[in-house]
Amino acid sequence: MIQTGTQPGHLIDIDQLSKREMEELFQQADAWKNGHGMGTNVYAGRFVANLFFEPSTRTRLSFEVAERKLGLEILQLDEMTSSVAKGESFYDTLRTLASLGVHVAVVRHSGGGLLEKMARHSLGLALINAGEGSGGHPTQALLDCYTLRHHFGQLSGLRVAIVGDILHSRVARSNVLALNAFGARPVLSGPASMRDPELESIAPYLPFEEAIGEADAVMMLRVQLERHQETLFSSAAAYRKHYGLTLERLERMRSHAVILHPGPFNRGVEIDGELVEHPRSKIFEQKANGVWIRMAALQRALEGGL
Amino acid sequence: MIQTGTQPGHLIDIDQLSKREMEELFQQADAWKNGHGMGTNVYAGRFVANLFFEPSTRTRLSFEVAERKLGLEILQLDEMTSSVAKGESFYDTLRTLASLGVHVAVVRHSGGGLLEKMARHSLGLALINAGEGSGGHPTQALLDCYTLRHHFGQLSGLRVAIVGDILHSRVARSNVLALNAFGARPVLSGPASMRDPELESIAPYLPFEEAIGEADAVMMLRVQLERHQETLFSSAAAYRKHYGLTLERLERMRSHAVILHPGPFNRGVEIDGELVEHPRSKIFEQKANGVWIRMAALQRALEGGL
Amino acid sequence: MIQTGTQPGHLIDIDQLSKREMEELFQQADAWKNGHGMGTNVYAGRFVANLFFEPSTRTRLSFEVAERKLGLEILQLDEMTSSVAKGESFYDTLRTLASLGVHVAVVRHSGGGLLEKMARHSLGLALINAGEGSGGHPTQALLDCYTLRHHFGQLSGLRVAIVGDILHSRVARSNVLALNAFGARPVLSGPASMRDPELESIAPYLPFEEAIGEADAVMMLRVQLERHQETLFSSAAAYRKHYGLTLERLERMRSHAVILHPGPFNRGVEIDGELVEHPRSKIFEQKANGVWIRMAALQRALEGGL
Repeated sequence: MIQTGTQPGHLIDIDQLSKREMEELFQQADAWKNGHGMGTNVYAGRFVANLFFEPSTRTRLSFEVAERKLGLEILQLDEMTSSVAKGESFYDTLRTLASLGVHVAVVRHSGGGLLEKMARHSLGLALINAGEGSGGHPTQALLDCYTLRHHFGQLSGLRVAIVGDILHSRVARSNVLALNAFGARPVLSGPASMRDPELESIAPYLPFEEAIGEADAVMMLRVQLERHQETLFSSAAAYRKHYGLTLERLERMRSHAVILHPGPFNRGVEIDGELVEHPRSKIFEQKANGVWIRMAALQRALEGGL
Repeated sequence: MIQTGTQPGHLIDIDQLSKREMEELFQQADAWKNGHGMGTNVYAGRFVANLFFEPSTRTRLSFEVAERKLGLEILQLDEMTSSVAKGESFYDTLRTLASLGVHVAVVRHSGGGLLEKMARHSLGLALINAGEGSGGHPTQALLDCYTLRHHFGQLSGLRVAIVGDILHSRVARSNVLALNAFGARPVLSGPASMRDPELESIAPYLPFEEAIGEADAVMMLRVQLERHQETLFSSAAAYRKHYGLTLERLERMRSHAVILHPGPFNRGVEIDGELVEHPRSKIFEQKANGVWIRMAALQRALEGGL
Repeated sequence: MIQTGTQPGHLIDIDQLSKREMEELFQQADAWKNGHGMGTNVYAGRFVANLFFEPSTRTRLSFEVAERKLGLEILQLDEMTSSVAKGESFYDTLRTLASLGVHVAVVRHSGGGLLEKMARHSLGLALINAGEGSGGHPTQALLDCYTLRHHFGQLSGLRVAIVGDILHSRVARSNVLALNAFGARPVLSGPASMRDPELESIAPYLPFEEAIGEADAVMMLRVQLERHQETLFSSAAAYRKHYGLTLERLERMRSHAVILHPGPFNRGVEIDGELVEHPRSKIFEQKANGVWIRMAALQRALEGGL
C-alpha cells in the first residue's frame, strides 16, 4: 500500500485512498459535471503523458477528454512496446518525461506492481494507474461508485453483485475495495473456474441467480472467451445461458436494481444487446461519469494530493 | 438517401445536399478562406473524433487542420482495426464517443453503407463521411466543385472530364452527382476495364482524346496499377501511353482548360510530373481549398445542419 | 552546405550556422529557459508537422513539448513508412503540407542527403533536421553545446571527449563541427572498428583512458551491440570492460569533468547505471535544455532565419 502524503499525487491503487479522500474526489467530479467541464482550462501549459503499454481505446479516450477539458498538453506514448515497460528503462522514461516538463503520467500496463515500484523513487511527476494487468484499476472503481452514489444517493448498505471473470478482473478487485470502504456490500458471482479465493476473503461468493436476485446493482464483467477454450464456456451461447444477463433475468431482479458494465461489452454473451441501452442500464452514464472522475484524479495529481 | 432535417448535421453522401445547401457551404468556405481561417477558435472546448479505418494521410491531415482552425479538440482513433468497423461494435463506439462528449465523428471506412446504417440511429453526434470504399467522398466533391467555381466563376455548363479508374472511384461518383446538381456537364473516360455502367447512366463516356479535347477541366484519377495486373495496363508506361495526361496532351486541350487531381498522384503514370505544378494545374489549390470546405462541413455538423 | 539567407529558416546541418548564429539561438533558449517557457503561445494558430520516418521517442517528444510551448498546432506523420521518404513523393508530401498551411516540417529520416535535396526547391515551408541517419543531428549538437556553455560559462578551449561508435554517430559528427566552431577541442575515442577516418581529420583520436583523463566533459554515445556481433564487443560486459564509463573510471577523470549522453543509454554497457543520475552527470539537464533549444530553432524557422 502506498503511503498517502509521502507520494502526494500518485494514484496507484484504490486502497491508498481513504473514504474521505474518495468523497472529496466525488465532490470535485460533481463540480466538473455540473459545470459541464466548460471554462476549465485551469491547467493550460502543464503537461501530461499517456503511456499505454496495453491497448485500451476506451480508457485512453476517457482520460484524453478529461485532460483536454483541464487544458493540459498531452504527450501520447501509446506506440511504446512492452519492452519499454521493464523496470529500469521505464524508470528512465519517466525521468526523461519529468525532465521535459511533464507533471503527470497516466499509465496502463500489464501489471506486476510496476507502478508501486516506480512510486518508491523520486520521479518528479505523479503517476496515475489507468489499469494494471489483473491488479487494479482505481479510476474505474471510482467512476462505478460515483455512478451508484449519484443514482442511489449513498453507497452505504448497497448490495452490488459483480459477475463474471472475477479471477482476471482488476475492475472486480478495485470495486470490492472501494465498495467495502464505503460500507456497501459487494458480492461476487460467476463460473467456478473464474473465482478468486483471495478476493472472496473480503466479498462473499454467491450463485448467479441468488446474487442478482437480491442486488441493488449488477455489474457484469467482460468475458474473454478466448481465455477459456478448454472449459464448458467455450462458446458465447453456453456462457450466456449460464451467466449472461438476459431480459428474462433482468425481470427477476429487484425492480429498482440497475445494470453496470465497465465495457467493452460482448452483446449476446455476458449481456444481451437490448439491455445495454435499457432504461435500467447505467452503462453509457458510467462512460460520461468517467470523464468527471478522471478530471478529479488528474487535478489531485497536479495539486500533489488532496 | 439521407433525409436532411431528420439527421441534422450528418454528411453521409453528396446527394443528400441540395444545390442551395452546397452553395451555402461554399459561401462559408469563402468566409474562412478570406479570413485565412484565423481568429476562428469559435468551437473551442467542443470535441471531434477522427475514425480512419483505412489509411488516408492526406484527407486525415486536411480534416485535422480544419478541426484545429475551428478550435476543436480532436480524438484520433486511426489505430482502430477494421474489426471495429463491423456494424454493432461500431455503433457502440459511436455511442461511447457521444457519452464522452464528442459532437462530430469524421469517418473513413471501406464502405458497405456503414454510415447510412448508423445514421438511422439516434447517435448523439453528427457523422461526416471522409471517404467510403468505392461509395462516396462528399467533401472531396465539394472541394473540387469549389475550386472550379472559384476559377470559372460558376459551374453551370462547365464541361468536366473525369478520367481513369471510374469503376473503383468514390471521387468520380461524388463529383458526377455534385456537378450534375450544379448544371455542369461531367463526362467520363478511361480504360474499358475501368468503366462503370451505372455511373454512365448519369454522365456520358467518351474516348480519352475526345473527352479532354472539349473539356474546361480535366480531373485525372489515381490509378492503382496493382489492381490491374492482368490487363494491358499492368505497367506504368502502358497506362501513361494510353490514358496519362502528358504535356503533349495538355497542348491539345482547350487553352483555358485546367487540371485537377484528388491526389495522391502517380507522377509519370496518370499524370506527368511536370504537369503537377504547371500553371494550369489546380492540384495544390485543391488541397488548400479542402481545408476551407472541411471547416464549413464541420461547422454545419456542429450547428446541426444548415 | 546550405546557403543561409537563400533558404531562410531551414536547419539542415549544423555547419550551416555561424558561431554568431548559434550564440543567438543560445540567447533565445536562455530567454525561454528563464521564463520557464510560460506565457509563450506566441505562434498560436500556426502549424508544424512532425515527420518521423525512423522511430525516435525522445527526440520526437522533445520537439513536441517545444512546439506546444510555442502554441503551435501539430500534425503528426510518424506512421509514415520509409517508402514515403523517397525523393519525389517526399517532395509532394512537403508541398501538400505547405498547401494545408504548415509552416515548419521537423523531419527524422534515414539519411542520404534527403533534406539538403529538398531544400533546393521552393517548398513554402521551413525544414528542421531532427536526426538524419549517420549524417547530422544539429539540434542535438546545439543542446549539448548549450549545456556545456551553461555549466562552464564558455566553450572556447573546452576539451570534450566523444566516446563510442563514432562511425555511425550523427551526434558525434554534429558535435565536432559545433565544438570546433566555438573553439572547443573535441577528441574522439572508442573501439578501432567504430572509428571514422573522415571525422578524425577535424578531431583527433585518442585511446579511451587518455581521452577521458584530460577531458573537461565526456560524452558517451549509445552503443548498438546488435550492429557489432562479429567483433569482440559482442557482449555488454566486454564493451563495458573496455569502453564503458564506470565509477572507477569517473574517479580517474578530472575532478571538475562532467558526463554527457544523448540517450537513450544502455545502463551497464557504455555507462554504469549509478552514473546516469550522478551529481556530475548532465544527462537529464541535456533533456531539459533540449526543449529550450528546439523552441529557439522552431522560432528561427517560423521567423524565416535569424
